[in-house]
Amino acid sequence: MSTSQSTLLWIILGASVFALVFATWLARWVLARARGTPEMQRISDAIQQGAEAYLARQYKTIGILSIVVAALIGIGYGFFRATTQHDPVSSARTLALYVTGSFLLGAVSSGIAGFMGMWISIRANIRVASAAMTSLNGALQAALRGGAVSGLFTVAMSLLGVGGLFALLDAFPPAGMSTDEWATKIPFLIVGYGFGASFVALFAQLGGGIYTKAADVGADLVGKVEAGIPEDDPRNPAVVADLVGDNVGDCAGRGADLFESTAAENIGAMILGVILYEAFGINGILFPLVIMAVGLVCSIAGVMVVRTREDADPMDALNRGYYVTAALVTVAFFFATRWLLNPADAPDAWWHFLLCGLIGIATSIAFVFITQYYTEYRYRPVLGIAEASQTGPATNIIAGLAVGMESTVMPVIVIAIAIVASYFLGASAGLVNDAGQPLNGGLFGTAVATMGMLGTAGYILAMDVFGPITDNAGGIVEMSRQPESIRDKTDRLDSVGNTTKALTKGYAIGSAALAAFLLFSAYLDEVRNYTGRELHVDLSKPVVFVAALMGAMLVFWFSSLAMTAVRKAASSVITEVRRQFREKPGIMQGTDVPDYGACVDIVTVGALKAMVLPGALVVLFPIVVGLVFKHFGMPGEFLGAEAVAALLMVGTIAGILMAGFLNNGGGAWDNAKKYIETGVYGGKRSDAHKAAVVGDTVGDPFKDTAGPSLHVLVKLLSTITLVLAPLFI
Amino acid sequence: MSTSQSTLLWIILGASVFALVFATWLARWVLARARGTPEMQRISDAIQQGAEAYLARQYKTIGILSIVVAALIGIGYGFFRATTQHDPVSSARTLALYVTGSFLLGAVSSGIAGFMGMWISIRANIRVASAAMTSLNGALQAALRGGAVSGLFTVAMSLLGVGGLFALLDAFPPAGMSTDEWATKIPFLIVGYGFGASFVALFAQLGGGIYTKAADVGADLVGKVEAGIPEDDPRNPAVVADLVGDNVGDCAGRGADLFESTAAENIGAMILGVILYEAFGINGILFPLVIMAVGLVCSIAGVMVVRTREDADPMDALNRGYYVTAALVTVAFFFATRWLLNPADAPDAWWHFLLCGLIGIATSIAFVFITQYYTEYRYRPVLGIAEASQTGPATNIIAGLAVGMESTVMPVIVIAIAIVASYFLGASAGLVNDAGQPLNGGLFGTAVATMGMLGTAGYILAMDVFGPITDNAGGIVEMSRQPESIRDKTDRLDSVGNTTKALTKGYAIGSAALAAFLLFSAYLDEVRNYTGRELHVDLSKPVVFVAALMGAMLVFWFSSLAMTAVRKAASSVITEVRRQFREKPGIMQGTDVPDYGACVDIVTVGALKAMVLPGALVVLFPIVVGLVFKHFGMPGEFLGAEAVAALLMVGTIAGILMAGFLNNGGGAWDNAKKYIETGVYGGKRSDAHKAAVVGDTVGDPFKDTAGPSLHVLVKLLSTITLVLAPLFI
Repeated sequence: MSTSQSTLLWIILGASVFALVFATWLARWVLARARGTPEMQRISDAIQQGAEAYLARQYKTIGILSIVVAALIGIGYGFFRATTQHDPVSSARTLALYVTGSFLLGAVSSGIAGFMGMWISIRANIRVASAAMTSLNGALQAALRGGAVSGLFTVAMSLLGVGGLFALLDAFPPAGMSTDEWATKIPFLIVGYGFGASFVALFAQLGGGIYTKAADVGADLVGKVEAGIPEDDPRNPAVVADLVGDNVGDCAGRGADLFESTAAENIGAMILGVILYEAFGINGILFPLVIMAVGLVCSIAGVMVVRTREDADPMDALNRGYYVTAALVTVAFFFATRWLLNPADAPDAWWHFLLCGLIGIATSIAFVFITQYYTEYRYRPVLGIAEASQTGPATNIIAGLAVGMESTVMPVIVIAIAIVASYFLGASAGLVNDAGQPLNGGLFGTAVATMGMLGTAGYILAMDVFGPITDNAGGIVEMSRQPESIRDKTDRLDSVGNTTKALTKGYAIGSAALAAFLLFSAYLDEVRNYTGRELHVDLSKPVVFVAALMGAMLVFWFSSLAMTAVRKAASSVITEVRRQFREKPGIMQGTDVPDYGACVDIVTVGALKAMVLPGALVVLFPIVVGLVFKHFGMPGEFLGAEAVAALLMVGTIAGILMAGFLNNGGGAWDNAKKYIETGVYGGKRSDAHKAAVVGDTVGDPFKDTAGPSLHVLVKLLSTITLVLAPLFI
Repeated sequence: MSTSQSTLLWIILGASVFALVFATWLARWVLARARGTPEMQRISDAIQQGAEAYLARQYKTIGILSIVVAALIGIGYGFFRATTQHDPVSSARTLALYVTGSFLLGAVSSGIAGFMGMWISIRANIRVASAAMTSLNGALQAALRGGAVSGLFTVAMSLLGVGGLFALLDAFPPAGMSTDEWATKIPFLIVGYGFGASFVALFAQLGGGIYTKAADVGADLVGKVEAGIPEDDPRNPAVVADLVGDNVGDCAGRGADLFESTAAENIGAMILGVILYEAFGINGILFPLVIMAVGLVCSIAGVMVVRTREDADPMDALNRGYYVTAALVTVAFFFATRWLLNPADAPDAWWHFLLCGLIGIATSIAFVFITQYYTEYRYRPVLGIAEASQTGPATNIIAGLAVGMESTVMPVIVIAIAIVASYFLGASAGLVNDAGQPLNGGLFGTAVATMGMLGTAGYILAMDVFGPITDNAGGIVEMSRQPESIRDKTDRLDSVGNTTKALTKGYAIGSAALAAFLLFSAYLDEVRNYTGRELHVDLSKPVVFVAALMGAMLVFWFSSLAMTAVRKAASSVITEVRRQFREKPGIMQGTDVPDYGACVDIVTVGALKAMVLPGALVVLFPIVVGLVFKHFGMPGEFLGAEAVAALLMVGTIAGILMAGFLNNGGGAWDNAKKYIETGVYGGKRSDAHKAAVVGDTVGDPFKDTAGPSLHVLVKLLSTITLVLAPLFI
C-alpha cells in the first residue's frame, strides 16, 4: 500500500467514523428534548409501535428475498459461469464469494440506513411538537438535527461500506499480484455492494411508498370526503396509519434510496477511476470517496449553522445551511482536485476537473430552482392547475398531467449540458499515460460532476427527513388538540417540510440522471474488462433496439403496478374505516375511540403483499432479457451484453422522465390545492377546492410511491447489470 | 426501362387508378341515398358549413407553413449545403428541386386525402341517419362505404404519388447514367414526398384533434355537468361544434395520418429495397408498392362483402369484411413473393419473405385483440376502472392511468417478436449478390413485415372513418328528436364505431412501431449513401446519449402542449356557452335557439392558434439538435447525424409507449363510463357515474388529441430526418 493510498483511506474512514460519532451526539441531543404532554406521548407511542411493527415485517420479507437472490448469485457465479482469462480473480468460487458477500453486506447496510432514518424520526416527531410549545427555533433545530442523524448515518455508512471493503480487500492481495494491480481489480469485486443496497432500497421504497399513500389516500377519501372531518382528526381510524406511513415511506424508504445512490455512484466512479490509473494512480480511484468524506464534514457544518428568528420564514434558515454546505464543498473541491487530480505531466487537469465538480454543484442548485418553479404556487404551473380547478376535477387532472409532462423539459436540458460539458472538460484535461500517450478523461469528468452533485448529500438528506418529522409533529399537535398558536408554528414547519421533500426528490432524480451515464460507462467498462473487447451500444441492430424498447416499457409497466398497488391497498383501508364508522357510531360523536391498530395492520399486510410483484419484475426483467438475448448474434459479438446495455440506458431515460413527470405533477397538484385553501377561487369547501382535492389524491401515488420508486429502479437497473454482466457474456 | 419494371409500374398505377374510380363510384352510391327530413338536413348543413369553414382556414394556415418550410428546404439544399461525391445527383440545385418539389407534392396530396375524408363524411352522416329510419343493414353499408371512399382515396393517392413520382423520374434518367443505376437513386430523391405528407398530417391531426376535443370537453362540462342536459341535446350551443369536431378531427386528421404512414413507409421500404438491388433488381424496390396496390383491391372486396341481418351485431359484419381482406392479402403475398422475391440463386428466399409478410398480418390481428382487451368492458382492465369509480374520481383516474400504462406491455412484446423474427427470417433468406457473396436481407424482412401490416390499410381506414360518420348520424337523429327505434339503430352503430376507432388507433400505432425500424434503417442507409460510411448509433457516446434523452423528452413536452391546448380551447367554449345560457334564458326552455356558429368560430380560432406551437416544436427540435450536434466530434465522425439517429430512435420508443398509454387509457375510461351506464354501480346519475365521467373527460384529449398526434410525430421525426439528413452531415 502506497503512502498516499493509506492516507486517503484514513481520511475516508476517519471522516465516516467522525460523522457517525457526530450523528450519535446529535441523536442524544434530540432525545434529550422534552416529550410534551401525556396525550402527545400516547399518540407518538402509537405511531412508534405501528412503524416498528411494519418495518420488522417488511425487513423479514426483504431479508428472505435477499437471501434467495444472494444464493442465486452465488450459484450462478460459482457453478454455472465459465471463468475467462479476464476475470479479476482466477477462481470462480472466490469471485462468487466476493460478489455474494458484498451483496449481502450492501443489503444489510442499506437496511440499517433505512432503519436509522425511521428510528430517529419516530422519536424526533414528539420532541419537535413539544419544542413548538415554546419556540420556533427550538422546533426547527430539533427537526433538522433529527433529520441530520439520518442523513449523516446514511452517507457515512455508505462510505464506510465501500471504503471499508476496499481497505479490507486491499490489505490482502492475492499471491503474485502487485498491490497496485490488485487495487485496480477491487472495484469490480465490490459491485455486489451496490446491488445489495439497491435491492433493499427498491423494496423499502416501494413497500414504504405503497404503505404511506394507501393510508393517506384511504384516510382522506373516507375522512375528508365522506365524513367531512379535517385531516389528522383523531376520530379517523386511519389517522395513525397515515402518520406511520410518513415514517416508513419517507424516512425508511428515502434513507435506503439515498444510501444506495451514494454507494452505487461511488463504486461506478471508482471503476471509471481504474481506467485512468495510468494518469492518476490510486488517487483517481479513491477521489470519489474523498469527496464524499469531506462532503460529510461540510454537511455537519451546514446543519449546525441553521437557526431562525421566531418571526422569520424557516425555509430561509434551511436554505442558508444548504448554501453554507455547497460553498464548503466547492472549497473542498478546489483543494481535492489540486492535491489528487494533478499529475505532473498534465498541469491543466486539476482545474478541468474542478470545473466538472462545480458543474455538478450548479446542476444540483438548478434542480432546486426548477423543482420550486413547477411545484410552488408562486409560479405559473401551479397557478394554472388551480385556475383549471374552477371547471371541475377533469380539467384539474388534465392541467396537472400537462404540468408534470412539461416539467421534464428543463431538467433534461440541464442534464444534457452538464453531461456534455463535463465530458468535454474531462476529455480536454490533457491526461497522458506513462508512455506519454493521451488518455480520454471525458467519462471521469462526468463522474466528477456527479460527485459534485453528491457532495452535499448529507445535508440534503437531513432536509428530506426534516419533512416527515415536521409532518408527524403537526399531526401530534393536531390530534392532541393544542392551541392555535402552537399549531401555527408546526404548520409553518410542515409547509417548509413539504417544500424540502419536493426539493430532495428533484435532487435525487437529478443525481440519478447525471450518475446514469457514469453507471453505464462502468457497465461497459466492466464488460470490456471481462471480455477484453470494447462494447458499443448500437441501436441500429434490431435486437439491441428491441431491448431498448423493452427497457422503456418496463418503466411504464412498473409505474402501473405501483399505482395499482396503492389503489388496492387504499380501498381495503376505506372498507375498514367505513366498517368502524358503521359499527361504532360513537366514534364520530367523540364518545368512542377508533381502533387505530386495525387500520395499521391492514395497510401493513396490503403494502407488503403489493410490493413483491413490481419489485420482482424489476429484478427479473433485465436478467431474462440478458439471458435470452445472449443466444442471438455471433459468438464474440456479445449481443446479450449489448442488449442489456440498451435496456439499461433507454430504461434509464424513460425512468428519469417518468419520475420527473410523476414527482412534479404530484407536487404541483398538492400545492394547487393548498393555494385554493388560502382562499382563492372560493377557498376551502368550494367546488374548485373539491376538484383540487381529486388532483391531490391522484398525485399522492405519483409523488410518493411510483416516482421515488423509479429513482431506485433506475439505479437498480445499473447495479443489477453491473453485478450480472459476466452472466450475459 | 426493363419489361418487369414497366409491368410493375402498370400494376401499381393501374390498381391506384382503379381504386380511385371505384371510390368515386362508392361516393356516388352514398350520395344517391335519401337525405332524410328537413330537420335533419338543417342540422347536417350546419355541421357541413362548420367543418368546411374550419378546414378552409386550417388549410390556409398549413399552406403558409408548408411554403415557408419548402422555401427553407430549397435554400438549405440549394445554397448552403456543400455537395459530396455521394450525392444522388451532381448539381445542388437539381437536388434541391427534387427534394422541394416532392415535399410540396406530398403536402398537397396529404391535404387532399384529409379533405376527401371529411368531404364524404359530412355528406354520408345524414344519409346514414336517414337509412337508419328503414334498415340497419342500409345504414351500416352507407356508413362503411362512406368510410371506404376515404380509405381507398387515401391509400390510392399515396400509392399514385410515390409510384407516379417514381415512374416520372424513371422516364428521364440523367445523361450518362444507366436506367438501372438511376432507379436505385430515385427513392432518395423522393423522400421529400413523405416529409411533405407528414408535415401536413401533423398539423391536420393536431389541429383537428384539438378542435374535436375542445368542443367535446367544453360541451360536456357545461352541458352534461353544469346544465344537466344530455349529450347531443339541441339546447347546448356547443353541440354543433362537437359534431363538426368528429369530422375535422377523426376524418380529416386520421386521413392525413394514414396517408403519410403509407407514403413514408413505402419510400422507406423502397430505400431498403435499393440495398438488395443485386439480389432482386428492381423487383425489391417496387415490391412494397405492388403489395399496397394488390391490398387496395383486396380492401375493395372486403368492403363489398359486408352486410348484416337486422338483429345481428354489426361488429360481426365488419369483422367478417376485415378477415376477408386479410385472407386475400395473405394469398396475394404468396403470389407476390414467389414472383418478385424469388431470385434463381436463393431458392428459399420467397417463403422466408412470405413468412415475414404473414408476421405483419398476424401482428395487426394481435394489435386488434390487445386493443379490445384493454378498452372493452368485457375484460378486466375496464371493469377495474369501473369498480374504482365507486370510491370517487381520484381512484377512477389512478385506475385509468394504471391501465393505460399497463397496456403498453403486450404491444411491445408483440412488436419485439415481430421485429426480431422478421429480421432473422430475412437474414437467413440466403440472398447473394452478383458475385455470389451473401447479402443481409434482415432489414428488408422487417420492411416486408411492415408491408404485411399495411396491406389491409384501405379496409382499416374505411372502418376508422365509419366511426365519426355513425357518431354524426347518431347526433343528427338525436338532435332532430327521432323515435326511440331509430335512435336504437344509430346507437348500436355508434357503439360499433367507438370500437373501430379504438382498433384503428391500435393498428396505427402498431404499424408505426413496426415501421419505425424500417424508417431508421432507411435513414442510416441514406446517411451511408451520402457519406460513403457505415453509421452506428452508439448510445455509449455522451453526445449521442444526450440526444436520445432529448428525443424522449420531446414526446413528454409535445404531449403536455397538446393537452394544454385542448384545455385552453375548451375553457373558451365553456365561457361562451355560459354567456349564451345567461343572456338567453329561453335556450334552456327550448323557446330560443342557441347561436351554434359562435361556438364553432371560437373553437376554430382556438384550435388553429393552439396547434402552431406544438407543431413547430416537433419540426424544429430535431433540426436544431442536428445542426448543433454536428459541431461536436471529429471530422468524419458524423456525430450530428448519429445524434439525430438516437433522437429519432429513442423519441420513437417514447412516442410509441406514450401513444399506447394515452390511446388505451382514454378508450378504457370511455368504456368504463359506458359500462356504468348499463346500470352497474348505480348506473347513470350515481356517484360512480359522476366519477367515471371525470375519467372519460380526462381521456378525451388523451385518446383523440395527444395520442393520435404522437403517431404522426413518430413518423414525422423519421421523414424529417430522412429529408434533412444531408444537412446534418
